[in-house]
Amino acid sequence: MIGDPEREIRGVSTLEGAGPHEIAFLTNPRYRGEALRTRAAAVLVGPGASVPGHDLLEVAEPYLALAEILELFHPPRPRRPGVSPDARIGDAVRLGEGIEVGPFAILEMGVTVGPQAVIGAGCVLGEGSFVGADTVLFPRVVLYPGTQIGARCLIHSGVVLGSDGFGFATSAGSHRKIPQVGRVVVEDDVEIGANSAVDRGAVGDTIIGRGTKIDDLVMVAHGVRVGPDCLLVAQSGVAGSAALGRRVILAGQSGVAGHLNVGEATIVAAKSALFEDVPAGSFVAGIPAVDHRAWKRAVAAIRNLDKLRREVRTLRRRLDALEPPRGGTEP
Amino acid sequence: MIGDPEREIRGVSTLEGAGPHEIAFLTNPRYRGEALRTRAAAVLVGPGASVPGHDLLEVAEPYLALAEILELFHPPRPRRPGVSPDARIGDAVRLGEGIEVGPFAILEMGVTVGPQAVIGAGCVLGEGSFVGADTVLFPRVVLYPGTQIGARCLIHSGVVLGSDGFGFATSAGSHRKIPQVGRVVVEDDVEIGANSAVDRGAVGDTIIGRGTKIDDLVMVAHGVRVGPDCLLVAQSGVAGSAALGRRVILAGQSGVAGHLNVGEATIVAAKSALFEDVPAGSFVAGIPAVDHRAWKRAVAAIRNLDKLRREVRTLRRRLDALEPPRGGTEP
Amino acid sequence: MIGDPEREIRGVSTLEGAGPHEIAFLTNPRYRGEALRTRAAAVLVGPGASVPGHDLLEVAEPYLALAEILELFHPPRPRRPGVSPDARIGDAVRLGEGIEVGPFAILEMGVTVGPQAVIGAGCVLGEGSFVGADTVLFPRVVLYPGTQIGARCLIHSGVVLGSDGFGFATSAGSHRKIPQVGRVVVEDDVEIGANSAVDRGAVGDTIIGRGTKIDDLVMVAHGVRVGPDCLLVAQSGVAGSAALGRRVILAGQSGVAGHLNVGEATIVAAKSALFEDVPAGSFVAGIPAVDHRAWKRAVAAIRNLDKLRREVRTLRRRLDALEPPRGGTEP
Repeated sequence: MIGDPEREIRGVSTLEGAGPHEIAFLTNPRYRGEALRTRAAAVLVGPGASVPGHDLLEVAEPYLALAEILELFHPPRPRRPGVSPDARIGDAVRLGEGIEVGPFAILEMGVTVGPQAVIGAGCVLGEGSFVGADTVLFPRVVLYPGTQIGARCLIHSGVVLGSDGFGFATSAGSHRKIPQVGRVVVEDDVEIGANSAVDRGAVGDTIIGRGTKIDDLVMVAHGVRVGPDCLLVAQSGVAGSAALGRRVILAGQSGVAGHLNVGEATIVAAKSALFEDVPAGSFVAGIPAVDHRAWKRAVAAIRNLDKLRREVRTLRRRLDALEPPRGGTEP
Repeated sequence: MIGDPEREIRGVSTLEGAGPHEIAFLTNPRYRGEALRTRAAAVLVGPGASVPGHDLLEVAEPYLALAEILELFHPPRPRRPGVSPDARIGDAVRLGEGIEVGPFAILEMGVTVGPQAVIGAGCVLGEGSFVGADTVLFPRVVLYPGTQIGARCLIHSGVVLGSDGFGFATSAGSHRKIPQVGRVVVEDDVEIGANSAVDRGAVGDTIIGRGTKIDDLVMVAHGVRVGPDCLLVAQSGVAGSAALGRRVILAGQSGVAGHLNVGEATIVAAKSALFEDVPAGSFVAGIPAVDHRAWKRAVAAIRNLDKLRREVRTLRRRLDALEPPRGGTEP
Repeated sequence: MIGDPEREIRGVSTLEGAGPHEIAFLTNPRYRGEALRTRAAAVLVGPGASVPGHDLLEVAEPYLALAEILELFHPPRPRRPGVSPDARIGDAVRLGEGIEVGPFAILEMGVTVGPQAVIGAGCVLGEGSFVGADTVLFPRVVLYPGTQIGARCLIHSGVVLGSDGFGFATSAGSHRKIPQVGRVVVEDDVEIGANSAVDRGAVGDTIIGRGTKIDDLVMVAHGVRVGPDCLLVAQSGVAGSAALGRRVILAGQSGVAGHLNVGEATIVAAKSALFEDVPAGSFVAGIPAVDHRAWKRAVAAIRNLDKLRREVRTLRRRLDALEPPRGGTEP
């Protein structure tokens, strides 16, 4: 702590918006100018940052500290246990203690909901689906029959889990549906963002590994296995039967083709498309995705293509001047 | 059939997951190693495949056979005819025989639902919309007023059909809405995946042709005509007024620009963007999309750009050495 | 007006579909052939267009005129004021005059809805959210707690506003949620298309500026500020904390990286990805996006790469022939 340890902090805000009783944070050097001008009581910074004229709270991992501080000032909404009289609960449904079920939610036959879980308004939990303890389904989530969700997950509004995979047998130009009879299994501590879709396996399950976080409008196809602790950023997609190792990151609007093996901790850059297996620790970019350094060189080379073309033209002219004339040299 | 014809099969599973009374399938040579190790009672294979040590069921079209076998072991859920007392049915609604309407579904004035159709929980069928015989709307589908859906369609959760097209008259920098007064018409045997959106026509209709299959999170804009038997894979999009011929395939995350004519049986590769008309039978890739062979050559050439640049440098040096010095050559 | 001023027009249609009492429109020269063949009573055209053999209505801004004519023939559905007995209204909710609330809509504690607003069937308005006068929420919109929407907005079905931003503190490979405590603020006259998602700010708000129009399946991340009168076309996305100036256009399937400043009236071409700040008036394309002319040159150069490579090979051979042999030249 650099500055007055008695300073009173009543909340968290942005560098721009903070008042004299709020703490702001500088986690991206891009905003240093705003940090210098902030009215905040103090600024949360990483190791070695300097913001002259301001009290600082220097921490080893500023994002982690921000998470902790925000939890302090914004504790999660307390549960309001109870099942809305406007919810519809089917036969053989098992409900854990302290759960909260919103109006117009539907729990079909044989659904199980673990203790302290929240089923938001208008959710539909298909036959035999399972929601683990402390998991929150925000309003209007749909679980197709048989979907399994672990403990402490957050599933945001509009998410659809367990819809049919895109599987057809094409014969003589027309497409016959291949029944999709696997399930979606979401392990513990997963978050899935608004309006994302995860399809059930054709045969066997689609699996979202423990601790994985999925952003909005992401598509995970049938039979995909996403390892633990992955990050799938907004509008990314994974085609059928691909397998992502642990800690894989798919940046925004990226894609992974079907049946691939994507090694642990691989990063697929934004807007890129991976079409081949990659080993652990890969960092790939481009369409088709290649090692990100090769991609950067290619991008630079493309920018210089005009120059290269002009140079080749110059070389040709110099050669023309050097060579003996090609036509007959009659005496 | 290669092996013991008396073998009892009780179910279908993956090569990895199958037990000794299940049949697995090998449709992609990528998984031959797993086929060799499988515990399955038998393996469904295409013509000429060999999996030593295993009973095989060899068929001409393995995907088609898989579809049939899965239907056998997993017949579709039987209808539960009836209209939920929690559904709301407007005036002048016509309901076919044997239909099933889930709780909290809303059928507005003048809706028609054909026989044996299923309207899932929480669906909203706007005024005057039409759902054909045997069609299934999974929970939480929205049909804007006037939307027409044919027979035997599957419309997955979260799908929105008939929302306004994106049409504005921009004048002096501000955007005035052009009323969108056309409809969405979905022909027979169409499937539409979770959270996809098809906009109504501005004037005239948006049409999804018979037998076309649309994956999750696909966007079809106003006035588009998608031909019969097309496949629109996840997160692909078609801009306004484009016309797709029959059997067109848009691979994952691809796009088609507005007002284009896309010839019959054209394939647009994954992550590609088509910006010009293409004749029947085209196979295009890239941004902008070109013939896929040209695209492959371009990709290869880009990968070799560094080499080319070095080669040009070498040539320049060799030329330098050959040419007479440029400066004055004073005696 | 060119032709018979007494002609009776009863409706608007497409060039192809129009009958003899309808007006059609020719706003894209691509359709001139259809204009020549149309049966329409008259054709709406821009300045100087000629369609021999047809009555014309020539206007300075044909799209604007089309908007006005369509409004004339298709006035918006009249409001049906009233709150459905099947809606659920929480404590301390304030409802303006003349509002319409559909069945199974939920207005949680402290919600405010302005006069003449429409809350469609199955919408969920979280605690303390605000909907301005004359705004229409189509069925099945979700507003997370605290979301603010201005006047005269149109929010289409499946839209989710205010879901958590994708913010995690990663420590030792696992991802800890950073509470997302900002809001989504949508200003007046905004339209948001089906199944789009706008995340709440982490700290501070996500803002959609006045008059901005957002298409279907668009993703706007936490802390983004979208200026007034922007157009975000289908399946585009904006990453966290980016700031878009007024009148920015993101074409279909394009993306903007996090923390960028995108100058006023910038256009990001379809399928492009912007990774750096750009000044006002930019028109960029490609991945990564560059000035669109540079991108066009690069695309052309790539198409000619094969030719360039062949030319370099020819130059090398010519040089080989010119140079003295490299080996020893023993006498």
